[in-house]
Amino acid sequence: MTTVAVVGASGYVGGELLRLLFRHPKVRVTAVTSEQSAGKPVQSLFPNLVGPELVCEALDPDRIAARAGTIFLALPHTKSAGPAQRFLKAGRKVIDLSADFRLKNAQAYETWYQTTHPCPDLLPIAVYGLPELHRDAIRSATLVATPGCYPTAAVLSLAPLHQHQLLGDPVIIDAKSGISGAGRTPALSYHFPEANESIQAYKLGDHRHLPEIEQELGVTVTFTPHLVPMTRGILSTAYVRLRQARTTAQLTALYRDFYKNEPFVRVLDPGHSPNPLHTRGANLCEVSAFADPRTGMATLMAALDNLVKGAAGQAIQAFNLMQGWDETLGLQDSGLYP
Amino acid sequence: MTTVAVVGASGYVGGELLRLLFRHPKVRVTAVTSEQSAGKPVQSLFPNLVGPELVCEALDPDRIAARAGTIFLALPHTKSAGPAQRFLKAGRKVIDLSADFRLKNAQAYETWYQTTHPCPDLLPIAVYGLPELHRDAIRSATLVATPGCYPTAAVLSLAPLHQHQLLGDPVIIDAKSGISGAGRTPALSYHFPEANESIQAYKLGDHRHLPEIEQELGVTVTFTPHLVPMTRGILSTAYVRLRQARTTAQLTALYRDFYKNEPFVRVLDPGHSPNPLHTRGANLCEVSAFADPRTGMATLMAALDNLVKGAAGQAIQAFNLMQGWDETLGLQDSGLYP
Amino acid sequence: MTTVAVVGASGYVGGELLRLLFRHPKVRVTAVTSEQSAGKPVQSLFPNLVGPELVCEALDPDRIAARAGTIFLALPHTKSAGPAQRFLKAGRKVIDLSADFRLKNAQAYETWYQTTHPCPDLLPIAVYGLPELHRDAIRSATLVATPGCYPTAAVLSLAPLHQHQLLGDPVIIDAKSGISGAGRTPALSYHFPEANESIQAYKLGDHRHLPEIEQELGVTVTFTPHLVPMTRGILSTAYVRLRQARTTAQLTALYRDFYKNEPFVRVLDPGHSPNPLHTRGANLCEVSAFADPRTGMATLMAALDNLVKGAAGQAIQAFNLMQGWDETLGLQDSGLYP
Amino acid sequence: MTTVAVVGASGYVGGELLRLLFRHPKVRVTAVTSEQSAGKPVQSLFPNLVGPELVCEALDPDRIAARAGTIFLALPHTKSAGPAQRFLKAGRKVIDLSADFRLKNAQAYETWYQTTHPCPDLLPIAVYGLPELHRDAIRSATLVATPGCYPTAAVLSLAPLHQHQLLGDPVIIDAKSGISGAGRTPALSYHFPEANESIQAYKLGDHRHLPEIEQELGVTVTFTPHLVPMTRGILSTAYVRLRQARTTAQLTALYRDFYKNEPFVRVLDPGHSPNPLHTRGANLCEVSAFADPRTGMATLMAALDNLVKGAAGQAIQAFNLMQGWDETLGLQDSGLYP
Repeated sequence: MTTVAVVGASGYVGGELLRLLFRHPKVRVTAVTSEQSAGKPVQSLFPNLVGPELVCEALDPDRIAARAGTIFLALPHTKSAGPAQRFLKAGRKVIDLSADFRLKNAQAYETWYQTTHPCPDLLPIAVYGLPELHRDAIRSATLVATPGCYPTAAVLSLAPLHQHQLLGDPVIIDAKSGISGAGRTPALSYHFPEANESIQAYKLGDHRHLPEIEQELGVTVTFTPHLVPMTRGILSTAYVRLRQARTTAQLTALYRDFYKNEPFVRVLDPGHSPNPLHTRGANLCEVSAFADPRTGMATLMAALDNLVKGAAGQAIQAFNLMQGWDETLGLQDSGLYP
Repeated sequence: MTTVAVVGASGYVGGELLRLLFRHPKVRVTAVTSEQSAGKPVQSLFPNLVGPELVCEALDPDRIAARAGTIFLALPHTKSAGPAQRFLKAGRKVIDLSADFRLKNAQAYETWYQTTHPCPDLLPIAVYGLPELHRDAIRSATLVATPGCYPTAAVLSLAPLHQHQLLGDPVIIDAKSGISGAGRTPALSYHFPEANESIQAYKLGDHRHLPEIEQELGVTVTFTPHLVPMTRGILSTAYVRLRQARTTAQLTALYRDFYKNEPFVRVLDPGHSPNPLHTRGANLCEVSAFADPRTGMATLMAALDNLVKGAAGQAIQAFNLMQGWDETLGLQDSGLYP
Repeated sequence: MTTVAVVGASGYVGGELLRLLFRHPKVRVTAVTSEQSAGKPVQSLFPNLVGPELVCEALDPDRIAARAGTIFLALPHTKSAGPAQRFLKAGRKVIDLSADFRLKNAQAYETWYQTTHPCPDLLPIAVYGLPELHRDAIRSATLVATPGCYPTAAVLSLAPLHQHQLLGDPVIIDAKSGISGAGRTPALSYHFPEANESIQAYKLGDHRHLPEIEQELGVTVTFTPHLVPMTRGILSTAYVRLRQARTTAQLTALYRDFYKNEPFVRVLDPGHSPNPLHTRGANLCEVSAFADPRTGMATLMAALDNLVKGAAGQAIQAFNLMQGWDETLGLQDSGLYP
Repeated sequence: MTTVAVVGASGYVGGELLRLLFRHPKVRVTAVTSEQSAGKPVQSLFPNLVGPELVCEALDPDRIAARAGTIFLALPHTKSAGPAQRFLKAGRKVIDLSADFRLKNAQAYETWYQTTHPCPDLLPIAVYGLPELHRDAIRSATLVATPGCYPTAAVLSLAPLHQHQLLGDPVIIDAKSGISGAGRTPALSYHFPEANESIQAYKLGDHRHLPEIEQELGVTVTFTPHLVPMTRGILSTAYVRLRQARTTAQLTALYRDFYKNEPFVRVLDPGHSPNPLHTRGANLCEVSAFADPRTGMATLMAALDNLVKGAAGQAIQAFNLMQGWDETLGLQDSGLYP
């Protein structure tokens, strides 16, 4: 069994990592940290967890490194870079689920996160952990930056067009997320009576996932996230002017070809639309393509579970690659429906 | 008291008409029809209704016309035109909430509804019942076609740009609706376990509300509706390339000016986003404008209650105008929050 | 117009008072207080509100008393008694929506609220504001204690049995509430992802609404509240051993007779069950009675909107009585459905 | 690999059986039937399913028996008994998820299901498939009747009291179920806008799960099921007069002892309440006990996922026993949270 630690386990991403790692056939979780819940069993934080009765401890990188070969960091951005550096120096592999190593450009980080990057020297070795685009680099990485939930959906919905140089102008991404995407800290906007029967856009033109999307697609993007009254799930609806005309059938064929060997991307038949309900709990992204002959615009959609393919599942997919294992290990179970 | 009838009262729009008409200070509802519920009291269909204990009857236009001066038709499309004609011949005013008289062009109706228009001769006298655009025509109309719920939101979010000839290409409307917008007839897609924790686009490039939007805005539109797990509410998020550059402040000022005398449109301050939760049960449309300096695109949003400003409330607003009354009569109460 | 003030307007009960008072034909709201939102317009707290643009002020009883004849207190328990005393001394009428004056017994207050009662001398003049049981006393009261939301449902479901001395032992009340009943302050239990797809009992045998129920019914009660994933609404399901056998028909007749003149209680036909969905936004309580011939137990149910008949609406009903007006003034509109 | 068939796979229980069987390490699903979906791949019915691409066929017992050693029947009641008989004659083991073999008494079946039992001769060999009560009988059974979802929760919450002869009178079970418990066939009550923001009791004193509960507990029970706006989950809240006084600590100890070797029952600490949110997707039942010193009544609660421990998971638990395997095979993964 390979040993791993989960650092920052009290949020939803930390809990989802534990759920998935507990059922991974080759993994033993040997340490779990949480500053605010130090001393508490993880089952008291996540009543769903069936598995080893681990107790949260405060983060002491040396003590953690002594017990685990790979470290999953589920810390807030700016808090992740320091521990990552410590773990790497100790010879451990690091899979960071924060935003600290997603942007290749330290200046862009400073612009969007309004703070100097804590460890810019690590940026060159960090690999953006989207296996569908960077599989080989992930295999040999020691530091992987797991993509944000919105970027995973948006980039997977548009990557085939990017590869074929079909992305014209504009590229518009209208994304809808369940409330778990906002984290586990209560606030008025996420208070049940205010989030229920509600749908609202936020951070227009200003969301921190935007530069990630532009980095991966190489184009300027208009990105508008919305919160919808669901617990889990993201639907990304992108509108693109194609550089050359394509029919829905042609686009679908192009997407099918691009994703033909991908275990976790499902390209839907024309006339079908992705729905995060189809992916709950699963490391799966549904994708569809539609070309509107009336308007000349293409509509590209992707749906996924923000906590799985949008976070913890994708991190484990990268981890499997880094270990040289079958990429799907521990990630093949069906989601929950309904 | 002015007498009115509600024809086709068993659906959600019919029920909402009764709720609002029952509290209208100058109206008496004298007849209610429903083929499937003939003989049943309206309170058995809508347990919320407090008011006269009316009993549904089968539709007999002559008998209805004898009792009511204005007829609200809440029938399915293609079923409305015939009765409308009968009521008009009998000298009654008709407010039609179906799609039968929304499109000015009979050929467009045939294309989108895949049937010959039942009464094309009435199209020239029908007025599109959006008071913010057609107030004067509504005042003198005898036949008003109440706009669809999506078009109300989409058109109100873009009308100021249309008036100022700022609508460039593309114009993209990504709309999200609660499930009541799909009507009261059960189907698998609206079955609670399939609609809950779900969000899905439908009828891409093919929704019947699209030609209405294009008719009112005079441009080609990409329109994608989505169903979200709410009971009521629509949020329309439109993305537009402006023909001339504008800042958010300029756009907001332009919207404020356009809607300065409108009792039922609320233009939000920059940085605030419309939310149908703010409008539940009220004849109100929240609107906002945002110009993205990075991309040169504008994002225009509108939120409303699909059954009120998107249907029954708007119909009564038109009715007030047709009667020469204060447009806000019976429509001024606050919505429900939360 | 009669002048009123709403003290403590930033919570859901305060907002609902404003919604209902704004549409009351004989009332003008002249002052609104909120410590945390002093200086803010009420519309910034409650975006649904259509009406006068009032600005919250900090609570200064003398300044408020100078402007309002009746004061609605929507403050937390223990915070209400002091201001109530000040307003009464100034000759104002007080309708308190906190728990401070609901229990007639200061010792019981101390037991259940674990603090000495702030103004025990006022308890003898306070009237429990359930019009269906205490209408005459309310009419002449200067201090009314509006019942809790659970007690309103539970007591209305059982009062006819109490009057007829049919309440045997045990009396069990299993109540289910929407999340707005827990107030507007965010907490993990009310965080959307934790409250959605969830149902849980809380405060078994220990909820502070229990002594109110026992006070009004004169019997010992087992009371278990549950939170369910709805925004508004309470359903109370009571199980009672009757002291004498009765059929469902007999019980229904007895309930019909008891409530025959009540404008806001609707006794359902046998075979129908109350549902808070039927009462949203309305000052209405649905009640039903069922006698199980197999077990000899009776099941008595009540449904209402916790913020209306369970709080703000009931307070206005009492206010109408205190003013000598028609009890239904401003409270007769239909609720929202669906 | 052991071969199994799922007969009647188009409903939620059928889909959940496939989800769980697909991840069972010793099982191969060799046949799937559905009359209405014959010819369709199961993934078209359940878009979550990752696994073999099986195609639904019409039910031909001989063809199915030729391919599968154990048959899971997820058919409507009265439709199950006939095929069960055919499969048993062919020497196959049958796990029936309908109600046809749950009641030991053919007369009771006739009373509650209002039809003559199709195969009363099989009743003596049918075993009620609740492993916590009938483990040994299940091990050697050829025909297992999987309990209903409500009975599983209710019986597990009360079985320790039954064993210790502490169940006095009355025994009241107030149960709350998510909408998936009502099945996959759309109807107005389950239409999203009518089921959302709604809670309602149904079939008072008349629900078909009642005789099962009484059969297993040996006492007369008052049972009231409610539908709440959740997709999955049941919470059962039982109120019992104990035959001898017990404290909460004593009851909890008694429950802990009764369930000490049970892999799928979790007895909560005093002060904690079961919540189906903790069990979503998992074969798990949370149980708690509380004795109210004020009233002398005990409150016993159980929460589970109606489609897993309340149906498909429990069936597989019984199947593992019938095969002589570890009872937890394929059933040990954590549920989904949130």
